[in-house]
Amino acid sequence: MYKDIDFAKLDMERKKRKGYLEAVFCESKTDEEIIKIFQTFYEANQNVLGTRAAKSQFEALKKVFPDVKYNERGKVLTLISKEIDRVGEVAICTGGTSDINVAEEAALTAEFYGSYVKKYYDVGIAGIQRLFDKLEEIKKANVIIAIAGMEGALGSVITGLVDIPVIAVPTSVGYGSSMKGLSALLTMLNSCAEGMTVVNIDNGFGAGYSANLINRKIEGK
Amino acid sequence: MYKDIDFAKLDMERKKRKGYLEAVFCESKTDEEIIKIFQTFYEANQNVLGTRAAKSQFEALKKVFPDVKYNERGKVLTLISKEIDRVGEVAICTGGTSDINVAEEAALTAEFYGSYVKKYYDVGIAGIQRLFDKLEEIKKANVIIAIAGMEGALGSVITGLVDIPVIAVPTSVGYGSSMKGLSALLTMLNSCAEGMTVVNIDNGFGAGYSANLINRKIEGK
Amino acid sequence: MYKDIDFAKLDMERKKRKGYLEAVFCESKTDEEIIKIFQTFYEANQNVLGTRAAKSQFEALKKVFPDVKYNERGKVLTLISKEIDRVGEVAICTGGTSDINVAEEAALTAEFYGSYVKKYYDVGIAGIQRLFDKLEEIKKANVIIAIAGMEGALGSVITGLVDIPVIAVPTSVGYGSSMKGLSALLTMLNSCAEGMTVVNIDNGFGAGYSANLINRKIEGK
Amino acid sequence: MYKDIDFAKLDMERKKRKGYLEAVFCESKTDEEIIKIFQTFYEANQNVLGTRAAKSQFEALKKVFPDVKYNERGKVLTLISKEIDRVGEVAICTGGTSDINVAEEAALTAEFYGSYVKKYYDVGIAGIQRLFDKLEEIKKANVIIAIAGMEGALGSVITGLVDIPVIAVPTSVGYGSSMKGLSALLTMLNSCAEGMTVVNIDNGFGAGYSANLINRKIEGK
Amino acid sequence: MYKDIDFAKLDMERKKRKGYLEAVFCESKTDEEIIKIFQTFYEANQNVLGTRAAKSQFEALKKVFPDVKYNERGKVLTLISKEIDRVGEVAICTGGTSDINVAEEAALTAEFYGSYVKKYYDVGIAGIQRLFDKLEEIKKANVIIAIAGMEGALGSVITGLVDIPVIAVPTSVGYGSSMKGLSALLTMLNSCAEGMTVVNIDNGFGAGYSANLINRKIEGK
Amino acid sequence: MYKDIDFAKLDMERKKRKGYLEAVFCESKTDEEIIKIFQTFYEANQNVLGTRAAKSQFEALKKVFPDVKYNERGKVLTLISKEIDRVGEVAICTGGTSDINVAEEAALTAEFYGSYVKKYYDVGIAGIQRLFDKLEEIKKANVIIAIAGMEGALGSVITGLVDIPVIAVPTSVGYGSSMKGLSALLTMLNSCAEGMTVVNIDNGFGAGYSANLINRKIEGK
Amino acid sequence: MYKDIDFAKLDMERKKRKGYLEAVFCESKTDEEIIKIFQTFYEANQNVLGTRAAKSQFEALKKVFPDVKYNERGKVLTLISKEIDRVGEVAICTGGTSDINVAEEAALTAEFYGSYVKKYYDVGIAGIQRLFDKLEEIKKANVIIAIAGMEGALGSVITGLVDIPVIAVPTSVGYGSSMKGLSALLTMLNSCAEGMTVVNIDNGFGAGYSANLINRKIEGK
Amino acid sequence: MYKDIDFAKLDMERKKRKGYLEAVFCESKTDEEIIKIFQTFYEANQNVLGTRAAKSQFEALKKVFPDVKYNERGKVLTLISKEIDRVGEVAICTGGTSDINVAEEAALTAEFYGSYVKKYYDVGIAGIQRLFDKLEEIKKANVIIAIAGMEGALGSVITGLVDIPVIAVPTSVGYGSSMKGLSALLTMLNSCAEGMTVVNIDNGFGAGYSANLINRKIEGK
Repeated sequence: MYKDIDFAKLDMERKKRKGYLEAVFCESKTDEEIIKIFQTFYEANQNVLGTRAAKSQFEALKKVFPDVKYNERGKVLTLISKEIDRVGEVAICTGGTSDINVAEEAALTAEFYGSYVKKYYDVGIAGIQRLFDKLEEIKKANVIIAIAGMEGALGSVITGLVDIPVIAVPTSVGYGSSMKGLSALLTMLNSCAEGMTVVNIDNGFGAGYSANLINRKIEGK
Repeated sequence: MYKDIDFAKLDMERKKRKGYLEAVFCESKTDEEIIKIFQTFYEANQNVLGTRAAKSQFEALKKVFPDVKYNERGKVLTLISKEIDRVGEVAICTGGTSDINVAEEAALTAEFYGSYVKKYYDVGIAGIQRLFDKLEEIKKANVIIAIAGMEGALGSVITGLVDIPVIAVPTSVGYGSSMKGLSALLTMLNSCAEGMTVVNIDNGFGAGYSANLINRKIEGK
Repeated sequence: MYKDIDFAKLDMERKKRKGYLEAVFCESKTDEEIIKIFQTFYEANQNVLGTRAAKSQFEALKKVFPDVKYNERGKVLTLISKEIDRVGEVAICTGGTSDINVAEEAALTAEFYGSYVKKYYDVGIAGIQRLFDKLEEIKKANVIIAIAGMEGALGSVITGLVDIPVIAVPTSVGYGSSMKGLSALLTMLNSCAEGMTVVNIDNGFGAGYSANLINRKIEGK
Repeated sequence: MYKDIDFAKLDMERKKRKGYLEAVFCESKTDEEIIKIFQTFYEANQNVLGTRAAKSQFEALKKVFPDVKYNERGKVLTLISKEIDRVGEVAICTGGTSDINVAEEAALTAEFYGSYVKKYYDVGIAGIQRLFDKLEEIKKANVIIAIAGMEGALGSVITGLVDIPVIAVPTSVGYGSSMKGLSALLTMLNSCAEGMTVVNIDNGFGAGYSANLINRKIEGK
Repeated sequence: MYKDIDFAKLDMERKKRKGYLEAVFCESKTDEEIIKIFQTFYEANQNVLGTRAAKSQFEALKKVFPDVKYNERGKVLTLISKEIDRVGEVAICTGGTSDINVAEEAALTAEFYGSYVKKYYDVGIAGIQRLFDKLEEIKKANVIIAIAGMEGALGSVITGLVDIPVIAVPTSVGYGSSMKGLSALLTMLNSCAEGMTVVNIDNGFGAGYSANLINRKIEGK
Repeated sequence: MYKDIDFAKLDMERKKRKGYLEAVFCESKTDEEIIKIFQTFYEANQNVLGTRAAKSQFEALKKVFPDVKYNERGKVLTLISKEIDRVGEVAICTGGTSDINVAEEAALTAEFYGSYVKKYYDVGIAGIQRLFDKLEEIKKANVIIAIAGMEGALGSVITGLVDIPVIAVPTSVGYGSSMKGLSALLTMLNSCAEGMTVVNIDNGFGAGYSANLINRKIEGK
Repeated sequence: MYKDIDFAKLDMERKKRKGYLEAVFCESKTDEEIIKIFQTFYEANQNVLGTRAAKSQFEALKKVFPDVKYNERGKVLTLISKEIDRVGEVAICTGGTSDINVAEEAALTAEFYGSYVKKYYDVGIAGIQRLFDKLEEIKKANVIIAIAGMEGALGSVITGLVDIPVIAVPTSVGYGSSMKGLSALLTMLNSCAEGMTVVNIDNGFGAGYSANLINRKIEGK
Repeated sequence: MYKDIDFAKLDMERKKRKGYLEAVFCESKTDEEIIKIFQTFYEANQNVLGTRAAKSQFEALKKVFPDVKYNERGKVLTLISKEIDRVGEVAICTGGTSDINVAEEAALTAEFYGSYVKKYYDVGIAGIQRLFDKLEEIKKANVIIAIAGMEGALGSVITGLVDIPVIAVPTSVGYGSSMKGLSALLTMLNSCAEGMTVVNIDNGFGAGYSANLINRKIEGK
């Protein structure tokens, strides 16, 4: 069911059990470890997604897999050997420009696992007209991801206006009493708007994964 | 769009905009206020759902609306004048018996808004076999709600075993460093299991609302 | 400058120094102490404002001063012997009906110190249309007080739409991770909207006092 | 109403709606992004204010706009093409010399938006005579900004002595249990002195913006 | 050295080792336990001090020891059979009237162990003139205890004006973000004023004990 | 393996799997539920242990099972139908008399599961001689449980003196910044003394269970 | 009993009193200090264990003691001059690959003090089958150490399946609301699983020490 | 009374008012600022004490004042032009070797202001015999400073054994849940030992200042 490569036990039949492939959290891994993991999946004929990857990790990997792609803002690696079948639509909104890193991680994750994605960046509530201008378009999605730091109220405002599941992602953007995203996290958890759920601070991957899962179920996949 | 009844502005056309009726948060309202709100919705020919309702509030309401129902564990009031059309299935699991209050709130909410619900209570990880025995049955649902206090690990274990969206609800059950549910909330937010999102501590209503929304979308409603 | 009545030192010339009379924080005081304090100010021919007063304190006071008034929601006592000269306008908005207690404290304070007050209750962002409907009217005020619990985003949304000073008051309304108002407080402090300042959780008095001070300065008083 | 420049949506008619121009938060932006934003506003014939700007950002900008100015302590950029009309007076007081960075941000913001500013640095309560010596002069302002770290009591002492609106800014100056400004923030929120409101830790910009707004309203602007 | 009375081990020779008798913390003890402890010390010919005592505990004790005294505000019991030799002077200042409970506990403790005490109540910084009027008198003490809740800045202001050791006591007076005294505690710990040390929230006993110890040492006892 | 009694799933073969019987956490259960659970175990011929039981629960239970025993300080119920085989020795030490409630819960738990217990109450570090006098006796145990509130240093001092496993239990005894046991918990977690592990605040049951498990293993059971 | 080497007092007879040698916490010590300490123990003919050692410290030490060994992941130094007598078995499990650093510290500590160790890495609950595959083998140990970051639920799941003492170690692995290990720590403290105790975040040394102590006692040492 | 040197207001007559000279907190000051401040005091014929000084600041200062001294562990600068008259004795104890930095700051401060100091380093409670060996000597001091990180229990143990005022200083030494000294701070505030007061985390200066103040008062200075 899984492959034991000494320092890790890789879940090779995850697609069968969970419907989707395992992702590789790159942060505290050595270049050698990442290459070994990518190799194992690649040889098993599986696409690979790496998150929280440093640019230097990408460069090391590229020498072995010239086809690997890297998104620098989202810190995401992808090595695609089988075409991805995409369906439906996930809308990804951010409050400000500083939330884009997390948004890119979410977008690439949802795309990797099989969703079409549309992006609406910098539509935060300080200038609420920007959001209203895009609202009709956003409402065409099956799932909405709302990403915001600081006060984190974007999710509540959107959720109050739609009948679509919203996944809110607090970001660590801010200073002072924003406490590295805790303020935005609390705002989102305490929202009165109905139909919104929350993931961990900066967890673009988790939001993208759940959004894709719901999106595909809605599309009958 | 909404009706201004002095102390509150009731959202009468919410069904059109949000797809679902507004719920009444009863906690700090007087009997008179609750009666007035129920009356307004009732006269507009709408079903009414009241959450966090005390037994005394139910008794006051019953004098005016003999058909109102009260679930004491979930502290939920329902006044149903139009039949509810239910579809799909939401599975509600709890870690222990003390989490049942929150589970009942979630179940009644999901049912009120149009989902069939199945309950799996006391299947926490301290005796993990109880969960495995029910797993095949649980997997038939479109959405799973996982409710747990104390360490709060139920959601992670379930999510690791299924390819269905999971909504985790931390409860304030516990003592000492459980800090009224904060420990369980943090466990859930930090889960490595993919496909799980989280709502506020004890927020059975929010979980039930979102689960129903996703369940119905999957059923094409 | 102040009068020493054993257990307290009353600021009798505060109006000269601070422009406004001292208020009496009733919470942990005995009936006897409150009566003594009211008496001292009354004999000096000054209006008196008491905050956080229990109903029983009002009843004890009423026996001595039949003209004393009590607002039960705001827990405010007023004993008016000199007519109050009011100017300008302070707008007081609340997110929900549960925030009205704090709003009443703010309103009575601003009125006591010399402002006209207009109230906009239950205009929270979960149904943002309610706020937009009142916006033109709200914009006529010199100062806006925005009161909200739970996620606390009302202040940000209003501030983003006006060029008027906004004072935000978080309330302890909520449950779970609202942490008795801390969540709303953090939301407000981290707001990106420019022109908003914040006071302590449930501090209707402080907001009313500052709003009146600014309102009267704007009116040239 | 706003201009969409791909990574951001700039609020070009903000002056009409909010009375004042938008400021640029430079912290996590690339040099290219900042230049693009300054260019957009500059071409629309608007003055530009940049906050939290690194020296290297200033140097990059200077190559394109030789007239841009940089205040190193306040980390503030200004590009002034239309003369600013200033009125009234904002007094800015700091507890110690380490609070000057935040004070400079506040001062430059208030000046940018149209206020005259007077500075009273290092007048903290450890040597309270320094404050008393300046008190009569400080009282000439329309609004006072009180900036302090560590225990953060400066705002309370000043507010107790004047009938002028005070905006308190906690700073992250300190060590140990100062917890990066949380201690000073709590002190200010819990002040008994009436007439003081609070902004986020180190938020000199927010204080300067609100002080200017109130100051100009008092001056009839 | 100590006497084992089953549920407790009483320190009978504490005076020899520590210089002072043990005090009895009454809070969670039964009437029977308190009577037994008082009896043991009384029979050993020692004065007894009980802190955090409920009125009902006093009444139970009074039946056995008619000479026991009770201070209701400070919740302190004293049973004096040997005359106390007092020296020097401890000054006890409070910010407001709500801090008097803690002040009384401190005063009775310092007196019990051998100090003369002078009280300066309600001299907080909101009306700083009240403090300045008493300053010369306060400066005659060997040690100052500064007691304050809410923002808790009294200790810093006093310490900045004297060359006498100051012991600061935060109190749990306040609401909202005062967090039951944590705000005042942090203020005091972060004070820039030199010569001040701090004890636990509401710990009047600890402040009185330490103040007496220092006072008597200064007096050569 | 377990018995499903509707509101709970009882682990009937736990002794086989875990070596020990399940305990019943009584806190939020109704009298009926507790009776039903006791009945189920009793009929399966198993001893039953109930923790966190109110006196009223004991009284309800006593009507059905006249042999049930109740320890009021420890809030522990026991219904013993099969003789318990006890071995080895667990030493239980408390810092003060207020920690005895937790100690009794620990003692009854360890005894229920098969250990002999010796108690050393009120040996806290404020009068460290009391501990030294008992040290040789304490060292005869296989496992030591150290229970303390407030500063919580008892465990460290004991652990520094013995070569026996120590389990530390913080208690919620204290006030002010003791924060309901968090202070003692942190002290214990940060101890430099080697050989100590920690359980949750007030978790006498958990300490008693683990101490018994280790004690019996050492005795070869 | 101990040797005073100016900056430290070394416990030379610790083995007699505590049964085991003292370990050297290297973190904030200079190379000179570490060499001096190793020398002192070495000359006394004792094995030496150094924890939290930087690679540069190892290199400095190696010049003096060519036989010193360094484990880079665990940051552990060992200088073995007397053969170690090992008994029994300690099982060390980790949730993920990022927890291995802490696991290595625990393993080397347990081995140094006299236990055989078996390692089960990357068996976390996200893919629970990996744990079940190893369970029978794990159950052969006398003591289990369960190491996990993020949600930290590994310890609960294992403890629910065995009748062996479990020591849980939270790790600082994670991001966002994991708050540097506090989330995992709380999960572990609040576990419902019986037979588990906890040590400080990242405290592999403490877990290894306690596990060895219990393991050896069980083996009759 | 004070000298205004633009960026700071120096308290030149502090000795008259407070009895002691002002100290210079060097942390966030430029070399130029520090030189200017030292110069001002030096020219006024006063000794100067600088705390939290970097080595580079010392080197810049040395070029202007060749007689300036620097203690690298305590990060303390002293420039002595008038002989210091020392009296009495302050004992400074640390729990471990890592607390020495803070101890040196305390020692140099107490010496600068006029006390003799004796040091007892590495006498923490993990090996309590080290403390007992020094106890009689420690007891000769007028004041004791107890410095400890991690669990922070040293102060309580000492205070329980003496009748001398103790000032406890928590240090930020530790890891995991020590939370940069908060754990030790809470331990000290919650101590049951009578006669101990507390200062901020790592505040060696504050402890040294207060200890000297008390010591000199006891000596009649």
